[in-house]
Amino acid sequence: MEVDTNDEYFTSYENLEIHEIMLTDTARNEAYRKAITTNSSLFNGKVVLDVGSGTGILSIFAAQAGASQVFAVEASNLAKLSQEIIKENNFENVIKVFNCRIEDFQLPESVDKVDIIISEWMGFYLLHEGMLDSVLLARDRFLKPGGLLFPDRAILYCSPCNLPTHFDNWDNVSGVKMSKYAECLRKQKSSKPEIINIDKDCLIADDIVIAFLDLSDISTTELNRIDFNEVIIARKSGKFQGLCIWFDVLFPCGDDNEEEVILSTHPQAQSTHWKQTIIPLPSNIETFEPLDPIAFKLIVQRNPENSRHYHLLLEILDAMSDDVQHPLPCECHMTKCILTKAHLANMTDSNGFENA
Amino acid sequence: MEVDTNDEYFTSYENLEIHEIMLTDTARNEAYRKAITTNSSLFNGKVVLDVGSGTGILSIFAAQAGASQVFAVEASNLAKLSQEIIKENNFENVIKVFNCRIEDFQLPESVDKVDIIISEWMGFYLLHEGMLDSVLLARDRFLKPGGLLFPDRAILYCSPCNLPTHFDNWDNVSGVKMSKYAECLRKQKSSKPEIINIDKDCLIADDIVIAFLDLSDISTTELNRIDFNEVIIARKSGKFQGLCIWFDVLFPCGDDNEEEVILSTHPQAQSTHWKQTIIPLPSNIETFEPLDPIAFKLIVQRNPENSRHYHLLLEILDAMSDDVQHPLPCECHMTKCILTKAHLANMTDSNGFENA
Repeated sequence: MEVDTNDEYFTSYENLEIHEIMLTDTARNEAYRKAITTNSSLFNGKVVLDVGSGTGILSIFAAQAGASQVFAVEASNLAKLSQEIIKENNFENVIKVFNCRIEDFQLPESVDKVDIIISEWMGFYLLHEGMLDSVLLARDRFLKPGGLLFPDRAILYCSPCNLPTHFDNWDNVSGVKMSKYAECLRKQKSSKPEIINIDKDCLIADDIVIAFLDLSDISTTELNRIDFNEVIIARKSGKFQGLCIWFDVLFPCGDDNEEEVILSTHPQAQSTHWKQTIIPLPSNIETFEPLDPIAFKLIVQRNPENSRHYHLLLEILDAMSDDVQHPLPCECHMTKCILTKAHLANMTDSNGFENA
Repeated sequence: MEVDTNDEYFTSYENLEIHEIMLTDTARNEAYRKAITTNSSLFNGKVVLDVGSGTGILSIFAAQAGASQVFAVEASNLAKLSQEIIKENNFENVIKVFNCRIEDFQLPESVDKVDIIISEWMGFYLLHEGMLDSVLLARDRFLKPGGLLFPDRAILYCSPCNLPTHFDNWDNVSGVKMSKYAECLRKQKSSKPEIINIDKDCLIADDIVIAFLDLSDISTTELNRIDFNEVIIARKSGKFQGLCIWFDVLFPCGDDNEEEVILSTHPQAQSTHWKQTIIPLPSNIETFEPLDPIAFKLIVQRNPENSRHYHLLLEILDAMSDDVQHPLPCECHMTKCILTKAHLANMTDSNGFENA
């Protein structure tokens, strides 16, 4: 079963049109290029491992940045084409391609460990495809203590959002009412996440961190389930029609004070092929006003039958209910939270912490 | 075999997201709305048949235009939802939905023939899906002599074009040469048509009519194969990197001199979900200059194993070869054509036709 799933997974990457989507994603390419080639102090003379090297573009960046040796490991048959691409870029003496899964890869006898691991492993909503597992395995097996990962941190975010395309545009389709249709469409859509670009103005809360992954020490089992269950605050008025999920990845930075490179898939960042992941709601929850509390539970859980897939479970809670725990202090406008906040501020003042 | 193919075909239309693509295609909706509702003189009090009625939007347009009775025939299970949509628009007394294939449909005993057939049957490059067959069957069985078809004419066009996305953008992908990759990508892509929006400036010849279909008298067998084999003229300089195919459909017009409605999928028209169909070439043929002759053969042939699919065969010919017949007169800059054209003009003058 596991083997079949992987076969299918790697075969999908033999379709050149998948790589076309990635290679025409300028935000993606430029973030990696900048993170790698402007950090040549980190790469100069170093041994680099590229996990899932595909067309070889990241390996070429590493070679351009001065790496002495790059091991490009690619399980799909794209490995062969990548050798030609590497030759076209005159790095055949620096980059060596291995056509195997990273799980089956062995470093040449002359090399004990690598200095840097580079990989573009991110899937939709960060974790789809489960490729991070392979990067962590590579880290544990092949990376020197203190070695670097590119990227080395990942942050998963969400925010409740308006979805005018799902809700508001159906009352008048060239003069025809399509509300009944839209209702069925939303019902169908709410059963699976949707990959679309949404307008930044559709977000109705601040960017909420669901998970911060420090790739240098996170374990695979920690990727099996991510739970989010908090009360958050509406920052502007808007209808809660779906949950928007996106991610950033961050890259290490050299001593020479280069600007930190962040590849962001936030709705207001340059569009990427990851777009945003939306969990559309079948119906409007309600219209929120600034400082309204919003409560929901989000579970991102690995599919036990296919470790490359996740289930996303969203449950909307009643933020006004006594069962829902607000943070301490909470910025929402509920009387109990205003009073608690004032009380806590008062305690802080009288303890002198703020003025210490 | 035939039944299986159709089952699959109709089931695909049970996916509400297919209808979402159509219902958010404003150019499509507005063309039908305008053609039908601004021609109420044609629809008023008339009996209308909607072939493949889907969500029922065209039937509702017909009812809005004053049709006395509309028969909406839909084979997929969307028929049920369309009844609710029709009710939402208060036309349940005008529009009757039949959940069957048009081939199995029978008019109520009280109705002998219909006055008008409406249908949105067009697929990619006009003929994909082969739904026009069903409209022609409906025409032959159910339309009154002199009855109207909406649309009643269709024109299939093509033009050689540049494809910068396939050819020119790969020399430098964030500083990496990807020509080898692009070569393989083009080879893969040239084996099948591609549905993309192309820039009107990429067309290098005039709009060439491949086929003009008068829907009032064309037969299904005429749709089995369309042949194009002519010398055409480059109108500006550009590389022949692919063939761009698109279509227009035209609607009947009332006596009251309304503007003729054309739904065009030309690259410079408002974008539609049909986009354009491209046959990409695996490699540059050559750069053409204005008045260069361009010769190619295009065959659009129905797949004998699945009548809803077509094969598109493109063969590039050498316009300079003696085997290739130029039109008489030909506007290209080849000496023989310039001389022939002058000679023909001279003959016309001396026969006095031009000045008659």
